[in-house]
Amino acid sequence: MIYNDTIAAISTAPGVGGIGIIRVSGLDAVEIVDKVFKAASKKTLKEAPSHTIHYGHILNKDGRVIDEVLVMLMKAPKTFTREDVVEINCHGGPVPLEAVLMEVIRNGARLADSGEFTKRAFLNGRIDLAQVEAIMDIIEAKTEVSLSQAVNQLEGKLSKQIKEYQDMLIQIIARIEVSIDYPEYDEDEPLAEDFKDDIRALNDKLKQLLATADTGKMIREGVKTAIVGQPNVGKSSLLNALLEENKAIVTDIPGTTRDIVEAYLNIEGMPFLLLDTAGIRETEDIVEKIGVERSKESIAQADVVLMLIDSSRELDQEEIALMNELKGRQVIFVLNKTDLTPVITQEILKAYTGDQPIVSISAMKQDGLNELRQAMKNFIVNKGISIGQEATISNQRQKQSLVKAIESLDKVGDTIDMGMPEDCIAIDLHDAYGHLGNIVGEALKDEIINELFTRFCLGK
Amino acid sequence: MIYNDTIAAISTAPGVGGIGIIRVSGLDAVEIVDKVFKAASKKTLKEAPSHTIHYGHILNKDGRVIDEVLVMLMKAPKTFTREDVVEINCHGGPVPLEAVLMEVIRNGARLADSGEFTKRAFLNGRIDLAQVEAIMDIIEAKTEVSLSQAVNQLEGKLSKQIKEYQDMLIQIIARIEVSIDYPEYDEDEPLAEDFKDDIRALNDKLKQLLATADTGKMIREGVKTAIVGQPNVGKSSLLNALLEENKAIVTDIPGTTRDIVEAYLNIEGMPFLLLDTAGIRETEDIVEKIGVERSKESIAQADVVLMLIDSSRELDQEEIALMNELKGRQVIFVLNKTDLTPVITQEILKAYTGDQPIVSISAMKQDGLNELRQAMKNFIVNKGISIGQEATISNQRQKQSLVKAIESLDKVGDTIDMGMPEDCIAIDLHDAYGHLGNIVGEALKDEIINELFTRFCLGK
Repeated sequence: MIYNDTIAAISTAPGVGGIGIIRVSGLDAVEIVDKVFKAASKKTLKEAPSHTIHYGHILNKDGRVIDEVLVMLMKAPKTFTREDVVEINCHGGPVPLEAVLMEVIRNGARLADSGEFTKRAFLNGRIDLAQVEAIMDIIEAKTEVSLSQAVNQLEGKLSKQIKEYQDMLIQIIARIEVSIDYPEYDEDEPLAEDFKDDIRALNDKLKQLLATADTGKMIREGVKTAIVGQPNVGKSSLLNALLEENKAIVTDIPGTTRDIVEAYLNIEGMPFLLLDTAGIRETEDIVEKIGVERSKESIAQADVVLMLIDSSRELDQEEIALMNELKGRQVIFVLNKTDLTPVITQEILKAYTGDQPIVSISAMKQDGLNELRQAMKNFIVNKGISIGQEATISNQRQKQSLVKAIESLDKVGDTIDMGMPEDCIAIDLHDAYGHLGNIVGEALKDEIINELFTRFCLGK
Repeated sequence: MIYNDTIAAISTAPGVGGIGIIRVSGLDAVEIVDKVFKAASKKTLKEAPSHTIHYGHILNKDGRVIDEVLVMLMKAPKTFTREDVVEINCHGGPVPLEAVLMEVIRNGARLADSGEFTKRAFLNGRIDLAQVEAIMDIIEAKTEVSLSQAVNQLEGKLSKQIKEYQDMLIQIIARIEVSIDYPEYDEDEPLAEDFKDDIRALNDKLKQLLATADTGKMIREGVKTAIVGQPNVGKSSLLNALLEENKAIVTDIPGTTRDIVEAYLNIEGMPFLLLDTAGIRETEDIVEKIGVERSKESIAQADVVLMLIDSSRELDQEEIALMNELKGRQVIFVLNKTDLTPVITQEILKAYTGDQPIVSISAMKQDGLNELRQAMKNFIVNKGISIGQEATISNQRQKQSLVKAIESLDKVGDTIDMGMPEDCIAIDLHDAYGHLGNIVGEALKDEIINELFTRFCLGK
């Protein structure tokens, strides 16, 4: 696709740094930058070969120097957008960046929308939609593991897998359509039955891929972890103890921060997203309600619950009620205050907790924290999360499309069982093909694509 | 100077952006990046020509992709530091940047100190100390005018001017030293008297340059503006009205934000730094003290004072006292609440204010704000601030060195008047020469230089 306009934006993070970049992309990118850039070599960018770096100055219309810069010249098609791209590396302050950007815009570029560079890369066919999402995930990665998953996706692991499944579908569809168009070939055996196994085998593969969705989401967004318990069992101390030793990476993208989130915790590369619970807030709020009630909300949305119990006093009715609530959930029971005389031991607790893990700690003395982290990590390991090279489904949009593809193939099975004609089977197979295609953005509706790009930061 | 170690750092602003840069500089920069970078072209950077751009991937020690990157190769000596410089443009999130940086460090680079790249540029003779300070000023520029002043300095305006004055001094020193070494040439006339005019002429030039220091500082740091007045005269409304229409650029460099600062205001490119005064705070603090007392502190450090008066009620004793305090200061009197029935008019006020400007406004109705801005801008114009091409002194360090140079030349005048021998004159002239040299960092002590670079951000 060829766009007539040339877009520009500040592509580095806002704030103060050593270097800041103005990215310009489009048909006139080189011509526009040539108008504002005076190379030390006196040569124009137009004459220069692609993928070269040029030192010089950005001048305003009166010929006054706005900034001393390095210009990165990348001519189409081997560029991020497949258009001509020029990146101006300025001094990294808001005023010089803004001043240079304004000069570029005054000379014919248009301010880019959020994610518009990436959108052009997508619409020009350089990357598919799963890769677009991967770029967003790389930028917003919480830990090394989330980064690794996103990079795999950018490298096309998921896209290749989807393509493979689509190819398998195409072969089945082709065979069915042959039998529709030339029924004379369809003599020896009940044709639909013949496909049934192939379709089921393919559907099993899709279901395996779907099984990666929950863990994929956890790797991307963090394992939602609710710390719950009665007032004064030490929830805040535990939170502080965990965070102090494992620096949290908190990204501050507008709109992604939810009130409920307290902090990110990095345990051996896996992100845990600690949820603010009633207990954590009660220190400010004054305890005006029973903690159990409010904790339920965090529990409902948590992947794993850390239930904290004060080992120095008897269990109360609310605690027992909460433990009953937690049956069937992923829970790690944490016996705190081991520095005090024990009233509740792991043995006593086992009567209530069944097979769920119990860890004894002293948040105050920072005892037992490694064990707790190990238990949290085990939760991941038990989930079968691996940072391997396989394709994973990492977000809701991909998951929904995959679910729809699976549903279509399930329907094919039913249709065959009901002895429906091949035409009906073909329709569902085509649907499944389309849903798979949506994962990588084939023939996806414009509004879905546009919505997706608005979540990008400016300049990407 | 050749350093044995290679330094690396994240050079873009912290936070989330489209692109982030890891800068690597030093003898082994190319070799180190070659270890972690796999170019799509399969070629190494070592083989590649300078000032070229390379697409590829950063791999970890297990060969797994950390990020997809563009690598900017700039071989010595035409680089920022005059060393080999390699810049890795990654996806602009904290986790990929940190991961790539760690990989570079694992392969032999050292994490750079604050400002260390610029320090190498300085110590390798690419820029002088005034230019170093200019880089910091560009990054932290508050408005276009501050940017323009800093760019002038980076372009060497101040440095050239200083060099010129040093050359003039050298000629005088040479002539004096000839007469010391060969007194036989010194027959016809009293030699010292002969130099006196030249020295005075030069000193006048230095004093002219010194006169730019106050305005240079205002351009760099903002015109310190105190808004003072009795409670409820409308100080907060005025502040809001001014800020609403002129977007403030607030830089958030740790350490530079002082509690007293309320906001930056940009009036036609000039930065005004609005100081928080007692009145502004009183809304939260409850008025427990007389405003006049606390306003005095802000007035003491302000370049210009906006004294706000409620035109709808009589002047009280405190206001009259404050006006007396303000005699001899740069004040703009602002009669607020013109939307109400006037009790105090400009005519009545003139009895107290003398020649100082008076502006009538309604902060609430946003009336008269343009006039007020004009009056604030006039303050600058009257100060003789121009955004011309001349050299200006823009910070305290430069100013102190210049003052010392002037003092040395003053002493020369005294020494000549007292009929002291030429040797004594030569000593003071050498001192003046040295002080001028300090402005651009010649022979400056290491600790002063080191202190200066610690004020830089990381990665610059």
